[in-house]
Amino acid sequence: MRRGLFITLEGPEGSGKSTQTRLLCDFLRRKGLHVVHTREPGGTSIAEAVRRILLHPSSRIAPMTELLLYEAARAQHIAEIIRPALCHGAVVVCERFTDATEAYQGWGRGLDREEIRALNRIATGDLRPQLTLLLDVPVREGLARARSLDKELSVRARRTRGGDRLERESLAFHRRVQKGYRSLARKEPKRFRLIRWEDGIENVHARLIREVVSFLKKRGVRV
Amino acid sequence: MRRGLFITLEGPEGSGKSTQTRLLCDFLRRKGLHVVHTREPGGTSIAEAVRRILLHPSSRIAPMTELLLYEAARAQHIAEIIRPALCHGAVVVCERFTDATEAYQGWGRGLDREEIRALNRIATGDLRPQLTLLLDVPVREGLARARSLDKELSVRARRTRGGDRLERESLAFHRRVQKGYRSLARKEPKRFRLIRWEDGIENVHARLIREVVSFLKKRGVRV
Repeated sequence: MRRGLFITLEGPEGSGKSTQTRLLCDFLRRKGLHVVHTREPGGTSIAEAVRRILLHPSSRIAPMTELLLYEAARAQHIAEIIRPALCHGAVVVCERFTDATEAYQGWGRGLDREEIRALNRIATGDLRPQLTLLLDVPVREGLARARSLDKELSVRARRTRGGDRLERESLAFHRRVQKGYRSLARKEPKRFRLIRWEDGIENVHARLIREVVSFLKKRGVRV
Repeated sequence: MRRGLFITLEGPEGSGKSTQTRLLCDFLRRKGLHVVHTREPGGTSIAEAVRRILLHPSSRIAPMTELLLYEAARAQHIAEIIRPALCHGAVVVCERFTDATEAYQGWGRGLDREEIRALNRIATGDLRPQLTLLLDVPVREGLARARSLDKELSVRARRTRGGDRLERESLAFHRRVQKGYRSLARKEPKRFRLIRWEDGIENVHARLIREVVSFLKKRGVRV
């Protein structure tokens, strides 16, 4: 039985998801809510093993294998972390979820989107976020930010972040991903809030907070 | 484009799949056919990494995670080994395939069989065996054989074989698996050949060869 609230943050490389999620969680905790901050593929031991396979730059992974490994990590993440937290009434804030798979593997890599949706449904046991905040950043801008962030990190940290393989992709790939994210947002306007990129972390944070507060109020949560 | 022939061997623990597959492949090779003998989860580096996660006795794997990891290993096995061999016109003989997932995870563990079929379809790109030889051995007999085989193996070899987790399951579990396999065979009588257990490896081998020769002749392969 689900009692908590499930919020996801989505967006391309360099859109500031990690920073914005951290700021959002700090805000919600200051309001006295029980918050669980997590990110895909999740910190479970199985998810980490899957992550090591996925992010190894020399892995010759077939596209379908990659997709299924993501879904396996997701299923474990849900079983170990997300569902228990929701059952305890927490607000779960997760960086990336099923929409990322549709945007990256479907729109980006061209895998069958109908199959991806079927896999998402099965792997999650049909668990869906109630609110999805999409950080919409111009592609070039995002990639430049992701790259400058990369320079500050050691090779090891970069691998852990998962940047290595995805950020080597072409500009055209990232444009397709953005198009995919926007299309998903248009199809589910009730669940999605598109947060356009504006100069400064604080501006984006403020817009995001407005959306989250309005969402919580509609659900009778006092903030 | 598929030009080869795809044959699978299925059956519960201790049904003698490995021995019978080896004997079958030897027979086909003596007839001058190009044969590729393989077994799930496949010897690919990614499949082996998945295998290590799956077979670790202390892993607390959610049932859906386990299922998706099997499917990921399968997708890689198909991409790296099975499809290329079929494209080169080989007779691919594979120990265990999608039917094992339906029998073990579906009938045995009680996962939704409709979902398993959907996953099998997606993970395989709808690649199906043309002939499936089901070794049907009485459950107690099979388990006793699997256990006596286990005693001859070191702990390490046992883990590699993948026996550890599955063979610890209850007799009831193995009965459900058998029922599942038989149900699958009834539903697809054109693809399945049920090979009843008889005393002696040679007797089973002889029956199996009769079925395979008849299958090959129908496809215009001279043996």
